[in-house]
Amino acid sequence: EHQGKGRFDPDQFRVREGSNVDLGAWQTRVDPLFDTKEDYRDRLKEHVSTLSRLQQLFYAANSQALLIVFQAMDAAGKDGTIKHVMSGVNPQGCQVYSFKHPSSQELQHDFLWRTTRDLPERGRIGIFNRSYYEDVLIARVHPDILRTERVPPGRHGGDVWPERYRSINALERHLDENGTRILKFFLHLSKAEQARRFVDRIDNPEKNWKFSDADMTERAFWGDYQKAYEKCLTATSTDLAPWFIIPADDKDSCRLFVSQVILDTLEGLKMEYPKTSPARREELLAIRSQLIK
Amino acid sequence: EHQGKGRFDPDQFRVREGSNVDLGAWQTRVDPLFDTKEDYRDRLKEHVSTLSRLQQLFYAANSQALLIVFQAMDAAGKDGTIKHVMSGVNPQGCQVYSFKHPSSQELQHDFLWRTTRDLPERGRIGIFNRSYYEDVLIARVHPDILRTERVPPGRHGGDVWPERYRSINALERHLDENGTRILKFFLHLSKAEQARRFVDRIDNPEKNWKFSDADMTERAFWGDYQKAYEKCLTATSTDLAPWFIIPADDKDSCRLFVSQVILDTLEGLKMEYPKTSPARREELLAIRSQLIK
Repeated sequence: EHQGKGRFDPDQFRVREGSNVDLGAWQTRVDPLFDTKEDYRDRLKEHVSTLSRLQQLFYAANSQALLIVFQAMDAAGKDGTIKHVMSGVNPQGCQVYSFKHPSSQELQHDFLWRTTRDLPERGRIGIFNRSYYEDVLIARVHPDILRTERVPPGRHGGDVWPERYRSINALERHLDENGTRILKFFLHLSKAEQARRFVDRIDNPEKNWKFSDADMTERAFWGDYQKAYEKCLTATSTDLAPWFIIPADDKDSCRLFVSQVILDTLEGLKMEYPKTSPARREELLAIRSQLIK
Repeated sequence: EHQGKGRFDPDQFRVREGSNVDLGAWQTRVDPLFDTKEDYRDRLKEHVSTLSRLQQLFYAANSQALLIVFQAMDAAGKDGTIKHVMSGVNPQGCQVYSFKHPSSQELQHDFLWRTTRDLPERGRIGIFNRSYYEDVLIARVHPDILRTERVPPGRHGGDVWPERYRSINALERHLDENGTRILKFFLHLSKAEQARRFVDRIDNPEKNWKFSDADMTERAFWGDYQKAYEKCLTATSTDLAPWFIIPADDKDSCRLFVSQVILDTLEGLKMEYPKTSPARREELLAIRSQLIK
């Protein structure tokens, strides 16, 4: 039902396993999928309502989980995308976790520990707003972070990143084998559009609280972040747990792209409501007689 | 905006602190607040959209948390109420936890431990689908459960329940003092309506999975549960953390009642978007100049 006009091939945004990512070659803006704002709203509404229906079935089938990872530069629209795509889904079947500065307890553990506790249960959609990927992104841009993570001595050298990519790939493969489907979205924003959004946060008093000076500090490392993302996307996009590089300069298109990738994935799972065996059917009918007495 | 026709006084369902609850005197069905199904849908939609707006403000203000507890007999509509009232709210600001059989690790701790870990953060709405109240409800109906909870010897006697009520009241007072507002809903269902809903789950193959034989087992203890609820509601409804006894035989009315109590509570908090100080405003304007260069 979300087919036809405005439909796109999600593969165009998918990083194929083994391919080398050059972010300069990936667009931050594409032609919109819709003609008017109203057209956009109708499409998003259709996506959200299909998603809500599929999630209900996913919850009832209770056999798999879905983990959705969002990573991006500041102001790329992670929060807004989560809000607009997932509001409408029963929150009982959808958990969102935002990973900010790790606590000192979390820093006492390996870098996969803190997010592992929040992985989605079967039948649930789990959304990571930032994730263990921060440990190969911000940590790579600011290697001092490794010291606070108390990585064993002798491992601070140049080989920590391939080790971490391997750990991540092993974790994601393990999750896939045990019933957790994984989708990863990098919301790809241009530096100019980030500036426009920061200015907007400053100009709009109700949005001032969203702006922090740290955002400006990190903006100064834009080039380093792009390189860290390129290496990360290259090393960790697999057939089992693919990365999608979503053009994020236009928020509306971004939301339609993300919601459709999620829909396609859920539809691909070919879920069904749990079936009742004939023997169980007999039992239920006996209970029914008791009840209507 | 959710005022006017169809509005009700939530106090009519509120258990006043110190009052003695006799569930037989509380209705399981009242005159509906709406004329037609369409009228109902319009009202619920209005509630959900107001709730979504208020929750956004609650999230931005980031100063308080809201804990909403649902307790009820099986099939009273906890899941459906959560789904219909909370779908539309940004899942990033709303966490739902369902507490079923405790794990053996959880049983090694005091009865408040497992739910405490899942209390809502500031700025979030946390929903407990069942809660620590199970430990004065099912545990009271089936006292053998106390043994699995390894309560220290000498405390298995008759005085465990007042102790637990006191613990709960102390916890809720502590939470309130530290910025967590608390609402507790008992969805009050009649035994006849439960039978009708069980039959419906049996007759509808897509709902078979919702029906478990344990539901029938517990139904046999209906009277004991009503007594356990009466004692619990009497002992733990406080001005700070009130219980609402919501007539639940009609699902639609139940959802309107619950959503309005939540709305009234959020509106009563008089939240505002975080304010920017003049000094901070100056800083932001300096950053702005940098950005537009």
